[in-house]
Amino acid sequence: MTAASNNNPDNTATPFATRTVAEDFATVFALLKPQMARLDTFLHGQMSGFEPEIRPMAEYCIDTSGKRIRPALVFLGGWTGSAGTAPQELIRAAAVVELVHLATLVHDDIMDGAELRRNRRTAARQYGSEAAVLLGDALLAHAVHLASQFPTTEVCAEVSASTRKVCAGEIMQTMRRGTANITLADYQRIIDLKTAELFRLSCFLGGRLAGHPPPFCNAAAEFGRRLGVAYQIYDDLADFFGDEKRIGKTLGTDLASGKITLPLIELSKRLPSDADRAALADEILKHRPPQPALRIQQMDTLGVFEAVSEAIHAELRAAETALAPHAALPPVPLLLRLRGVLHDQVVALKK
Amino acid sequence: MTAASNNNPDNTATPFATRTVAEDFATVFALLKPQMARLDTFLHGQMSGFEPEIRPMAEYCIDTSGKRIRPALVFLGGWTGSAGTAPQELIRAAAVVELVHLATLVHDDIMDGAELRRNRRTAARQYGSEAAVLLGDALLAHAVHLASQFPTTEVCAEVSASTRKVCAGEIMQTMRRGTANITLADYQRIIDLKTAELFRLSCFLGGRLAGHPPPFCNAAAEFGRRLGVAYQIYDDLADFFGDEKRIGKTLGTDLASGKITLPLIELSKRLPSDADRAALADEILKHRPPQPALRIQQMDTLGVFEAVSEAIHAELRAAETALAPHAALPPVPLLLRLRGVLHDQVVALKK
Repeated sequence: MTAASNNNPDNTATPFATRTVAEDFATVFALLKPQMARLDTFLHGQMSGFEPEIRPMAEYCIDTSGKRIRPALVFLGGWTGSAGTAPQELIRAAAVVELVHLATLVHDDIMDGAELRRNRRTAARQYGSEAAVLLGDALLAHAVHLASQFPTTEVCAEVSASTRKVCAGEIMQTMRRGTANITLADYQRIIDLKTAELFRLSCFLGGRLAGHPPPFCNAAAEFGRRLGVAYQIYDDLADFFGDEKRIGKTLGTDLASGKITLPLIELSKRLPSDADRAALADEILKHRPPQPALRIQQMDTLGVFEAVSEAIHAELRAAETALAPHAALPPVPLLLRLRGVLHDQVVALKK
Repeated sequence: MTAASNNNPDNTATPFATRTVAEDFATVFALLKPQMARLDTFLHGQMSGFEPEIRPMAEYCIDTSGKRIRPALVFLGGWTGSAGTAPQELIRAAAVVELVHLATLVHDDIMDGAELRRNRRTAARQYGSEAAVLLGDALLAHAVHLASQFPTTEVCAEVSASTRKVCAGEIMQTMRRGTANITLADYQRIIDLKTAELFRLSCFLGGRLAGHPPPFCNAAAEFGRRLGVAYQIYDDLADFFGDEKRIGKTLGTDLASGKITLPLIELSKRLPSDADRAALADEILKHRPPQPALRIQQMDTLGVFEAVSEAIHAELRAAETALAPHAALPPVPLLLRLRGVLHDQVVALKK
């Protein structure tokens, strides 16, 4: 862990302090405290835009203690060097991406039949799944309404296209749930759409609305996309190798729910026989009970952790490379620091 | 019926033909055949904007033989006097409102557990309700994406606000399903949001994009809103008094599903005793089986049909009044003709 941190090139890149201990997302996001506070006020202020009858329901959905990663990417992509100040347009864009994300969470929780999210009852559990479908729609509609308050149609166009992509990715994932025939290419396409797209958009909008030069905005978009892919693979890896207490759920839930992720694809490839592969497929198809403990142990001995970690690191390297030509711009050291945090978290999964 | 038609002031108002027999929506919409054909081509052309993996699913949803009332309102509100020509902007706006409407239908059918819509399997039945939630989202996102292709943010702003209102109305309706305490004011608010809002928007956008004067656009919006309210009350009345074959469903489904509509509110008011009212409430609360035949018969004898019809006609009169100052403009005779069709359909319910 310490070795990994020392190897991390962005240790010296932060304009605030040399990182001597491993950071987590929270410590990087601490820089954004003033922006996040403004975002929170802004989001609550938006509630008056909802029809009075559904206002408390909308308020319930935004009142989460989520990490707000996407807003953070807007703020970091639009960093201009002075902490604590951000143009109102960045706050609005951050609210847009967060509302889109919250809407997708409301709909995800219906489909997963989830009872709790971040220790509160999900909207589906609180209001019923029928109302939750419509509530997610209303959040989405309001996100776009906010996006229409920019001077041009650009933000609307970007946000709506990204939202459609996120849905497309989730549809692909849903349609493949409980089927064993998912290729590496399918998996990559799904996570590129369902997760990386909104990361990409957040970084892009931040840069764009802060008035950074277009080549940087495109590089920031590519950084966001790669970071999003890395983040999703990390999340999928943590489902098998995470600390149950820290990630707050039982390990192996993806296997149990018939969802094929990179660790399972890599495990299947490495299993010694076709019969072994068929047995794993049967667990995914729910023809026999999942055996998460066995699968985690096999992943351990067959080098799955290393292979999947390497896939994450490759994305993180590509993310860094995208920003290389723009090292002199204020957002770059901060974005690279975020990259470093994810890198450290991957390493920390297996210690 | 004939008497009603003769009283109908818009019989002579159409620029195309004096109406000698009762029209239905189809005959008015026949005028719009070229526009509807262009809309259809345009909508199918939009499919290339969807990610290839979900394109067939999106195509499935738009491939309906729906009445396309909302697009018709766009075309009529934006009528400039020459049949068959419509600026591309009207086609695009018509596609936007239709996609929003289709998205809400996809989500409605999930909640109602509907198997069929217009004799085809619903998206929920075809792809599963989880995929259908996301598919509705994708349709909504694409509607907004189309709206962002206008030169200014106005259409995006209007469409997103209207969509949020439609959702708010449906949430209110959903939350009250199976409860007996719904007031007339609640009912009016719900239908104003869930149905009239999109009718209002369609008429407004048509007028606006065709370059009609702002006072007319506002009048057209008010016409649309009133027509939408009338249309929804008509729909709720037809649930008790319609021709089962023609409306394609069993009478009394609203009562059976615990949904309180104006006919039930009016019936409750007219029942002779509190005990009778409690019994009706019990059917709505599903504490005892619904008795649609009895309720329809009571509605018949207690003057419910007349009271509800009068509520519809009052809205239709208000719709007509809104347009009165603009009688010289090309859209007005056509919009009034549509009003006349709905008027005749209400009368035809009880013959």
